[in-house]
Formats: sequence, structure tokens, C-alpha cells
Amino acid sequence: MGCDFVVTHRSAGSNARTGLLKLSGLEVETPAFMPVGTLGAVKAVSAETVWEIGFRLLLSNAYHLYLRPGHQIIENCGGLAKFMNWHGAILTDSGGFQVFSLARLRKINDEGVIFQSHVDGSKHLFTPELSLSVQESLGVDIIMCLDDVRGYPVGESEALDALKRTESWAARTIAAKKKVDPALFSIVQGSMFPNLRRLSAEGLASMGFDGYAIGGLSVGEPHDLMVETIEATTPYLPWNKPRYLMGVGMPIDILEATIRGVDMFDCVLPTRNARNAYLFTSSGRVNIRNSRYRDDQGPVDSDCACVLCRNYSRAYLRHLFQEREILGLCLATIHNLNFYHRLMSDIRTAIKEDSLNSLLKLYLSQSEEIND
Amino acid sequence: MGCDFVVTHRSAGSNARTGLLKLSGLEVETPAFMPVGTLGAVKAVSAETVWEIGFRLLLSNAYHLYLRPGHQIIENCGGLAKFMNWHGAILTDSGGFQVFSLARLRKINDEGVIFQSHVDGSKHLFTPELSLSVQESLGVDIIMCLDDVRGYPVGESEALDALKRTESWAARTIAAKKKVDPALFSIVQGSMFPNLRRLSAEGLASMGFDGYAIGGLSVGEPHDLMVETIEATTPYLPWNKPRYLMGVGMPIDILEATIRGVDMFDCVLPTRNARNAYLFTSSGRVNIRNSRYRDDQGPVDSDCACVLCRNYSRAYLRHLFQEREILGLCLATIHNLNFYHRLMSDIRTAIKEDSLNSLLKLYLSQSEEIND
Repeated sequence: MGCDFVVTHRSAGSNARTGLLKLSGLEVETPAFMPVGTLGAVKAVSAETVWEIGFRLLLSNAYHLYLRPGHQIIENCGGLAKFMNWHGAILTDSGGFQVFSLARLRKINDEGVIFQSHVDGSKHLFTPELSLSVQESLGVDIIMCLDDVRGYPVGESEALDALKRTESWAARTIAAKKKVDPALFSIVQGSMFPNLRRLSAEGLASMGFDGYAIGGLSVGEPHDLMVETIEATTPYLPWNKPRYLMGVGMPIDILEATIRGVDMFDCVLPTRNARNAYLFTSSGRVNIRNSRYRDDQGPVDSDCACVLCRNYSRAYLRHLFQEREILGLCLATIHNLNFYHRLMSDIRTAIKEDSLNSLLKLYLSQSEEIND
Repeated sequence: MGCDFVVTHRSAGSNARTGLLKLSGLEVETPAFMPVGTLGAVKAVSAETVWEIGFRLLLSNAYHLYLRPGHQIIENCGGLAKFMNWHGAILTDSGGFQVFSLARLRKINDEGVIFQSHVDGSKHLFTPELSLSVQESLGVDIIMCLDDVRGYPVGESEALDALKRTESWAARTIAAKKKVDPALFSIVQGSMFPNLRRLSAEGLASMGFDGYAIGGLSVGEPHDLMVETIEATTPYLPWNKPRYLMGVGMPIDILEATIRGVDMFDCVLPTRNARNAYLFTSSGRVNIRNSRYRDDQGPVDSDCACVLCRNYSRAYLRHLFQEREILGLCLATIHNLNFYHRLMSDIRTAIKEDSLNSLLKLYLSQSEEIND
């Protein structure tokens, strides 16, 4: 199994750390954010643009690509990276969360998950082995084990069943793995029960994965409970392996998790927010549709050097959104991805300079500044 | 008044010619195609991309920008080119055709056109002077006179009334012009009546415009009648001024019009077709949604060096269209604009080499090859 990870700096005042993740000859500095390319495309931008912004690792989804266009087609085209013209590395989610959140008539047993496609209603059985095989076909760099995801809230015995199943599926994934190169990450479950999170983390850690994800969060629980659950998990994960918090989130969430020792993140937020006219700026998030920007000649963020902020006014971007011009979606997406890339860079610098608390305070002070 | 135009080569076997149009320090080789940026954006691509493809002149619309966001806002932002970050030249249509095709409850009298906005139902009076003033506010390089556009078919006396009104509006536009720099083009009308087209062309020509457009075509008439009408018009336009066929069209239409002495074109076809999954290729137009491309690893057009054809397979583009990914619209638009840019370059070369007929034959042979 293969991914090289080294912790390069430990924060003095918290569990935060910087690291270097080596994948396919590429180096990814952590903490890192992965843009989401669910269907083999980061929505509204090309892979070339994602690369130019500075990202080297992105996330895609085995569930979606298995259904459409089918992993075999992508394999025939030389794998997912070549299919989408991405020169960086790719992590694919296993489908556990997608089956939980998208599929219909879901039935879980120890073998796997029987579900109906959210696209055409067709019936499928997703097993740990099939999920692995799909991801191996796609030729990605980091494979996630299929997990049994539950909603919030859920009782302790249901949560225990789900984490045990997740653990046994993780073991089956190791056993079924054919390709040597891709790294294999397992996913910690246990809902919001600290004792179950510890049980899950220790159980998976003993099996020796290349990295460990924290799953089953961002499913409707309060923010503080999410943070507490992260805090109850990371101490039981191996220090020298990357920890990946799935599907999170807002800048403040990323900061809180970083402080608790998380290294990797993915979320649709920057791209989805962009398409809904929400732009992240150095002074808070703004909705560019607001009429105050109608005649505003300034850039969206004067601290930002992205193609949008260098070349276009707020008035122009607002006009594009008002008229539903596709270009507006593209420019806003580029801007928000730039913001997230800079955020992660700021976080890494703050860890090295032991100034993570001031960065946290800055974002806490901005969290109410949505002028919508 | 200002635009410099020289005919650089006359075709031996037809009325086709190449020329050089100098605008704002830029040189535009003719015959030229202008991409359409109706609302101050060429749909699905940035102005930077349009420039990179090679275009130096694009079209926008006074009617649309007057309604949204308002020409004053654009003027405050430094003019349309700066607003949309376009480093090339801009021609704006006057609104005559848009009022005819989009507005509701249209009433035309000698003063101007009273209409209700297609956006919000608000009532407006568009006069030749207002259209000019809007275009001067936008700071464009080529201003079009407001014209009285009629549908097809229309009786000869109605067509005569409309062309007389168009001529008197053109005279009022000259009289009202305040800015020296922009070039001013008038628009020949006369429906499909050769005698009226001649009357209109000679009347406008005697007033000394910087260029002459052929309007009132592509309004539902048969292809052959359109070509005959062009042929009945160009001989009566000044040889040393650019002739612009408005809103046309398919490659074959552009070729037919070029042979009859037209220098400039605009049409939504390459961009709109792109968004509808139709891609122009060197062997005809294809619909990339066709299931035959499901597993096709080849490029959309192996003769094309655009970003789509260099980096992506037909299978990937089809997947993007099947999933309604915005990136598909962007890549297809870039491809079709590249195709049109190359088409115009091929036409100019063919004029210089007196081989326009072989190019025409090639496109005639392809006109049925839509594999939909």
C-alpha cells in the first residue's frame, strides 16, 4: 500500500500539525482542502483551472461514477485523471455516504447495501469489494473503504452496529485489494458517542491503513457536537498517518478541526456557494446579488488576486448573476476555490508560526457577516 | 467619424474580398465573424478566452444593456469593454431587431418605437437618438443606427415605409452623434424586394456612413431568397466600406454571403449550438449527446487544436452534457468559437488564393451530415 505521509511541524498550543502527503510523484501540503468533482468535473471549472489555483488533490465519487458514465468507460479512457484531464491526484469516496444520502429504498445487511439509483431507479448491490473494484478501475490515488453511514440522531446500539459493520467491511476491503499503488483509507464511525468513536478509531488503527477518515459528521448535528466528536476521535488515530474529515466545511469548521489534529478536508461549500452567488472574502461572506453592489466598481475582494478580483467589478459579477450568465458561475467558483486555497495556506503558516488562535478569532468574528 | 477600412484583396471569380478594419488601435481582418455577447458576456466563456481564440471584435446589444444593468452603470464602470474585461473592439446593435423580436406591444411611429420590456413589462420609447446615446454611453467602437425591422413575409408598401423610416432615422442618428471616435454604420432594409434593397442601399450610401449593414434577413425567409437578397444589395453599397450581414449564420450562409461581397458577420449559432450539444467539426456538425460517443476515446475533431480537442475525449464531453455539467457548455463553446475563427481564416485564405469555390463545395457536401 502506498502513500507517504510525514508530519512536518507540530503546533505548540494545540494538536494541529502540518504535513506532507506524497501521491503519484506529487506533494500535497497538509492541512489540505480537496475541491469536489463528484461526476468527474469540479462544477463550473476545468481541471486545468483547479490546478492553476494550486490544488493538487481533488475528490470524486465512486457511487456517482459507477452509475454514470460507468467506471468501465472511464477505465477504457485511461482512468479518471486522464478522463477529466487532471494532472493531480484523486481521492474517491467509497459511496457509503452517497448511498445514505441519495439512494432510495436502501437496505443494509452484512453483505453490503441494496439500493435504487437516484438517477433511474435501477437496483444495485454495493459491497465493500465492488466499491473497491470501482475505485481501482477509476485508477485513483486514494481509495476509501465502504462504510455504513447513519443519520443524526441515532441510538447507541444502532451506532455500534454500524461501526462494527464498517470495521468488518474495512477488513474485507484490505483482503480484496488488488492494486498495490493506491493508498487505502478507512472511515471512523460511531455517531456522536465518544466511547464508540474511540472504539472505531482503535479498531481501524490496529488494521494498519494508509490514512483514516472521520465519517458520519456534517449529517445535521450541532456545530459544537461535531467539534467535540472530532476531539474524541483524533487522539486514537495513529499520529503518523493523515486524518481526513469528510464533507466539512465552513472555514471556521476547518479551523476547529485543524486545531484538533485533522489534515484533510473536502466540501462542496466553496463551489456550491459560488453558484448560489455567495462569495468568500477576507471580510466575510457576501451575496453578490445584493442590490448594494449594483453600481459598485470595486473588486469582490481587494485582498484577492484571482482572475475575478483582478479583472472584474462587483457590479459586473452582480449583473452576470442577475442575468444567469454561466460566466458568473465560473468566475465565482474560481474565486471561492482561490479563497479556500489561500485559507489552507494561511492555516499551514499559522501552525508553523503558532498563531492559529488569532486566525480562529478572525474567522469567529466574521461568522455572522453574511450580508444577505 | 472613425474607422479605417481597406480592401486588401479582390477575388478573381466572385465579389468576395479581404480587408483590414482598424478600430481602437486593433486590426480586424475581414471577412470577420463577431461572437455575440448580448448581455456583456459571450455566453459560457470569458472575454479573455474569446481573445485567446483570436477574435478582436465582438457584438453586444444596446437594447439588452439599456434594460439591464442600464447603460449608465456600465458607463460608470468605464464603458462596456472595461466592464466585461474585453481588450478588443465592440460593435453594438441598435436595438431595432431586438425590439422587433423580443419586446411586447410594439408600436412604431416616426418618432421611434414604444415597447414593453421583455424582462419586466416596463414601458419604453426607443428613438434613434436614445439608441445612439446608449451606444455612446457604452463607449463602443461601432455604433449601429436604429432601424425599423419587419418580419417575413411582408408586403411591398409596408417594406417601403419601413426602409424610408430607417433612412430618416439614420439621418437623425448622424445629426445627433456627439462622440467623434466611434464608427457609425447604417442598416439596409427593404425585405426581399430587390428594387427596395437597391433604393435603401443607395439612399444610405449617399449619406456617407463608415459601414453598411444588411438587416432584415434571417427572419424566416428561405435560404435561397436570403442569398438573392444579399446579391441584390451589395452592388449598391460603396466598395471601400465594410458590409455587415446581421445575424447570419451557418458556415454555408457565411460562404455564400462572402462570395457576394460581405465582410462582417455575427450570429449566436456557434455559442447557442454549443450549449445544445452541437459541435462543428471538419467533417460536419455532430450532436455529442448521441450514444455512439458513449465510449469514444477520440477527440471531437482531430483537425482542431482547441483546448477541448487537445485534452478531452468525446466520451468525456458526452458525459458532461448527459450530466448537465457547466464545464461541458464552456468547452463546447470554446470549440465552436475556435471552429468559426478557423472558418473565417480559411475563407480569407481561399479569397487570396481564389479557391473559394472549393471551400463552398466542401461545406455544401457537409450540410446534411448532422448525425442527430
